[in-house]
Amino acid sequence: MALGEFELIERFFTRPSKRRDVLLGVGDDAALLEVPAGRALVAATDTLVEGRHFLAGARGGSVGHQALAVNLSDLAAMGAEPAWALLSLSLPEVREDWLGDFARGFYALADAHGVELVGGDTVRGPLVVTVEVLGFVEPALALRRSGARPGDVLYVSGSPGEAAAGLEALRRGASMNSNDPLVVRYLYAEPRLELGRALRGRASAAMDVSDGLLGDLGKLCAASGVGASLDLDALPVSERLSAVHGREDCEHFVLSGGDDYELLFTLPALDAGRLEHELGRACQITRIGEIEQGRGVRCERGGLAVEVAGRGYDHFA
Amino acid sequence: MALGEFELIERFFTRPSKRRDVLLGVGDDAALLEVPAGRALVAATDTLVEGRHFLAGARGGSVGHQALAVNLSDLAAMGAEPAWALLSLSLPEVREDWLGDFARGFYALADAHGVELVGGDTVRGPLVVTVEVLGFVEPALALRRSGARPGDVLYVSGSPGEAAAGLEALRRGASMNSNDPLVVRYLYAEPRLELGRALRGRASAAMDVSDGLLGDLGKLCAASGVGASLDLDALPVSERLSAVHGREDCEHFVLSGGDDYELLFTLPALDAGRLEHELGRACQITRIGEIEQGRGVRCERGGLAVEVAGRGYDHFA
Repeated sequence: MALGEFELIERFFTRPSKRRDVLLGVGDDAALLEVPAGRALVAATDTLVEGRHFLAGARGGSVGHQALAVNLSDLAAMGAEPAWALLSLSLPEVREDWLGDFARGFYALADAHGVELVGGDTVRGPLVVTVEVLGFVEPALALRRSGARPGDVLYVSGSPGEAAAGLEALRRGASMNSNDPLVVRYLYAEPRLELGRALRGRASAAMDVSDGLLGDLGKLCAASGVGASLDLDALPVSERLSAVHGREDCEHFVLSGGDDYELLFTLPALDAGRLEHELGRACQITRIGEIEQGRGVRCERGGLAVEVAGRGYDHFA
Repeated sequence: MALGEFELIERFFTRPSKRRDVLLGVGDDAALLEVPAGRALVAATDTLVEGRHFLAGARGGSVGHQALAVNLSDLAAMGAEPAWALLSLSLPEVREDWLGDFARGFYALADAHGVELVGGDTVRGPLVVTVEVLGFVEPALALRRSGARPGDVLYVSGSPGEAAAGLEALRRGASMNSNDPLVVRYLYAEPRLELGRALRGRASAAMDVSDGLLGDLGKLCAASGVGASLDLDALPVSERLSAVHGREDCEHFVLSGGDDYELLFTLPALDAGRLEHELGRACQITRIGEIEQGRGVRCERGGLAVEVAGRGYDHFA
């Protein structure tokens, strides 16, 4: 409890540098970093607020993981290779056990992807965590939301909706320490960095699913100036999900859930078959629809148009 | 009030790009940026919490200014040229007038220094503002805290303490719209970017004064593995400050205040005279002491050692 701001940083967030491109890391006014020649810098930031992005009373380890994962997912969506992170922590009090757990969760994911924490800020306030990640990508190969063209085939990675179902289980009283795979998926979802890198120069458009597949597909379409048809029968529903929820709930989770860090992307129709096979090595991918001329997303079931409620998450809606 | 998250970003934080090195700005999963060859990337982040870093009820314009200024000050302390910023806003509610004012304050300072907002996050939560700034510096010329050597002369820029006195005036009831120059200094202090650039390759060590001159000098000494003597008689006390406060209070504000964004730096003794003249063109600088062998900061008044209370600001102390 008596730990001061500078001791806190020294104790939990200062480690020997592992990356040779970090000329100066934690401890000065700013970090000094070396971006490789010929690569563009990729920068993203996301904020998590207690009680909104993670449950009040959540364990430090899962918050540390999530705060970095949600940012790495943005880099995955650009096809980027992550390199460095900055961490801003607003804490109501210094609880050493919680902070140690937070640091372990953060560093476990950082180490898995070769990411180094190079700076940050620690202040007293409500529990709010902001992470910024920096990485690189060859500028001509970077994935964007805006490149989808009519005729492109639409895919989603992995099994979206599991994390949302895990969150619901927690809200209904499941323990934070539960072994329920849906709960674990929510607390420790893995960003799709390998798939993102494999999509470079191949996908015509990509984004990560963070506000729900349906709403995010609408954003991809808007950015590309196209429409899309979404085949509800084709949506991937994992066995873990269908084992505990009925068809309608599963569809709701898949279309509206946003904490899985799955990627939504489009491939040109001519290359789709060949690429589908190759990309499937990075992780499961599922063909869920097609890009069309026009605007907006049309949902189909059994070949018939259907209306689906819920257009994704909006913090201020 | 009915403004959604994406409309909010569109309305207040999306503007045409002015920098050719922004390949992709606000609106995708991440920004794509081009770092010039031969320069190191410089990255810093700072968080402001309502009621702690700015007063509850503060005007949006000053909060927008401060959130960027405190970060630009970190870049000034590295001798860096700022280029891009990311903004994470946690807002209890969407108040369009406050947000419009915030955006004006932020952009006025950003435009003054050629900084472009390239990404961010907007969430609902307590009022917490995190900015990350990115810039460049020639790696061999970057300013660090760690290079001070015994015999170096110690300087501080401008007039530290004014902002702290302005904050005190506000706490005692002065209006946020007051023309009191101390209040204005607190709300709209200017980071010392020009001086920082002028110090590149010249100052042996530098940092910005953010937690109080005395405490920050201790950090500079610790990072450099040296001690320092601080001449209290030499401290710059502005006329604006001494007009309203007695000698003791003035000294307290100068030694402990941290919102002025002044720079603390050391010059090699042999170059000090010549450089002092040259650097004085960027802004007033004052010789306040000397770097010594040993550890810690010794304060002197009239040539005699004195004890001074208050070692700078620690959020968790």
